[in-house]
Amino acid sequence: MAEIRRDLVKNNWVAIAEDMALKPHEFPINKRGIETTGIHIFCPFCEGNESSTPPEIMACREGTSQPDTPGWSVRVIPNKFSAFHLEGVLEKTHSGIYSNYNGVGRQEVIIETPQHGIDLHDYDQERITMVIRVLRDRYNDLSQDERIKYIQVYKNRGIFAGASLEHSHSQVMGLPFVPRGNSGVAEYYKKNGKCLLCDIIAQEKQSGVRLVYESDHFLLICPYASRFSYETWVIPKQHCEHFGALNEAEITDLAMICRKYTRVMIESLQNPAYNFVLNTAPVNLPYQPGYHWYMEVTPRLLVTAGVDIATGMFMNPVAPELAANLFRERMLKIN
Amino acid sequence: MAEIRRDLVKNNWVAIAEDMALKPHEFPINKRGIETTGIHIFCPFCEGNESSTPPEIMACREGTSQPDTPGWSVRVIPNKFSAFHLEGVLEKTHSGIYSNYNGVGRQEVIIETPQHGIDLHDYDQERITMVIRVLRDRYNDLSQDERIKYIQVYKNRGIFAGASLEHSHSQVMGLPFVPRGNSGVAEYYKKNGKCLLCDIIAQEKQSGVRLVYESDHFLLICPYASRFSYETWVIPKQHCEHFGALNEAEITDLAMICRKYTRVMIESLQNPAYNFVLNTAPVNLPYQPGYHWYMEVTPRLLVTAGVDIATGMFMNPVAPELAANLFRERMLKIN
Repeated sequence: MAEIRRDLVKNNWVAIAEDMALKPHEFPINKRGIETTGIHIFCPFCEGNESSTPPEIMACREGTSQPDTPGWSVRVIPNKFSAFHLEGVLEKTHSGIYSNYNGVGRQEVIIETPQHGIDLHDYDQERITMVIRVLRDRYNDLSQDERIKYIQVYKNRGIFAGASLEHSHSQVMGLPFVPRGNSGVAEYYKKNGKCLLCDIIAQEKQSGVRLVYESDHFLLICPYASRFSYETWVIPKQHCEHFGALNEAEITDLAMICRKYTRVMIESLQNPAYNFVLNTAPVNLPYQPGYHWYMEVTPRLLVTAGVDIATGMFMNPVAPELAANLFRERMLKIN
Repeated sequence: MAEIRRDLVKNNWVAIAEDMALKPHEFPINKRGIETTGIHIFCPFCEGNESSTPPEIMACREGTSQPDTPGWSVRVIPNKFSAFHLEGVLEKTHSGIYSNYNGVGRQEVIIETPQHGIDLHDYDQERITMVIRVLRDRYNDLSQDERIKYIQVYKNRGIFAGASLEHSHSQVMGLPFVPRGNSGVAEYYKKNGKCLLCDIIAQEKQSGVRLVYESDHFLLICPYASRFSYETWVIPKQHCEHFGALNEAEITDLAMICRKYTRVMIESLQNPAYNFVLNTAPVNLPYQPGYHWYMEVTPRLLVTAGVDIATGMFMNPVAPELAANLFRERMLKIN
């Protein structure tokens, strides 16, 4: 199990996997020759290799196939290398000026397809819908554990986005604390008595310069302070705190947007690595107003430099107004 | 000139270079085939190519060679692609809920050697001493401009650390605001009436498990909450707020440590990309106690995933106690 250590300089947390020490040659960067050869190496996420992963948590299966056998279309497994485990009680330990929590939590992998070599932008509407539904259901299931305070849903695609396996997957992580990444939304509410994301929606619809697309339920924008070139946010138009509250109509709409947007982005940016990361409200804590879930999609065309991380100030060579302009036209043309 | 835009969700700043829009194929990641072929491509930082950079700010030259001609051993130039320029007055602009500063500031490149293909770990004591002295002098020079509030000194080595050019260089950036990256040190002082870094030194010396090396003036540790595998800090043992206050004895000592440590790190980790980033006190602002300058060295063996950036919680698969153990033995053996 990991230790979640307090970083006193940055006022944040670091998850340190104590029981596992990667050797230098085992890091993905040093293995990249192997990782990018694709389908010729053994892949634990491929159909038929179910026995090389931990037992599945759930799977979408047609017919009568048994767990941990072929016949699935989306499969959820525990992350084998997780820093978090749902065991025991959350404990805080002090050691002089330092402090840490034990890694009570959960990290799950959603294998989005049995097929190696295709990704989000290749899926049909039905598959994307299924993946989003599974993500929502895992979110809601993890939120039943009172030890979990925040559920982080995300996807790393490509080595430059931090993916260590090529086979298309996303992840759901249940954390025993609330990371402070989106703390600005609660502060904005305290100061203004209004939801920041609702205010962003209003201003972006009015100005239009960073607006990429609007559907029945969602707005796509390139955010005003984009940290990454071509960063794009998918925001539910109606105020909604939890990703887990997604209904079927919204899932269908979100699947349509994800399908179109990832196709446009992959094509426009020459098949980049990217992340998506959900921002959502904490769970199992007293109600705090100001949260409004949304999805950040961040193409990874520049490697994050040390100074971005040290200062928290990112340098972005592409204005979001230019990025929005590129995507806006192409979103209207794509099927 | 850039806009420094307020990121309301993260409560931080983003520098957006408005007057320049990189095309997708111009990003370093997409050019990496070219960038890693080394000395066969044209390099603006090589001796003899002085005319392809902006005019030099200063250079260490022996004999009578003229500015912007060969004959230098360390050369400082403005960053051609800087988001910041020392022109005009710092202005804050509001646009609805958004706000930004214009990019009044400075970004300089320190070309550490005329020779392409060697780096910090290859330099002799004399060259490292010269580079550190130049960094200190640029720090002190930039701090004379009252519009500058924070001076960020850093180095990106290798494409996985965000470097876009291979020729060995470091950078000095004068910012018109204080990024909040190291805000924890001032908060610690407010709460405890003591310097966090001094307390860290005391605790690390006592426990010893994360101690890598101790010289006359500096302590090397792998920090308790290491965000990056094998992250290492170089901390002046005597409380000192500004990097610019380095004296000659300290420069000599720091050069010796940098030479030994980079050799050990490059050898132990199979020639990784890395960053070094200085943390230091703000300038041209009312005195705020709690700052103590130090250097963070972060090997880049994992690509920063989107979730690290979104949440601010990094996942590190190598405990700093194991990292320190590896480096400690090797530091004693290296010449």
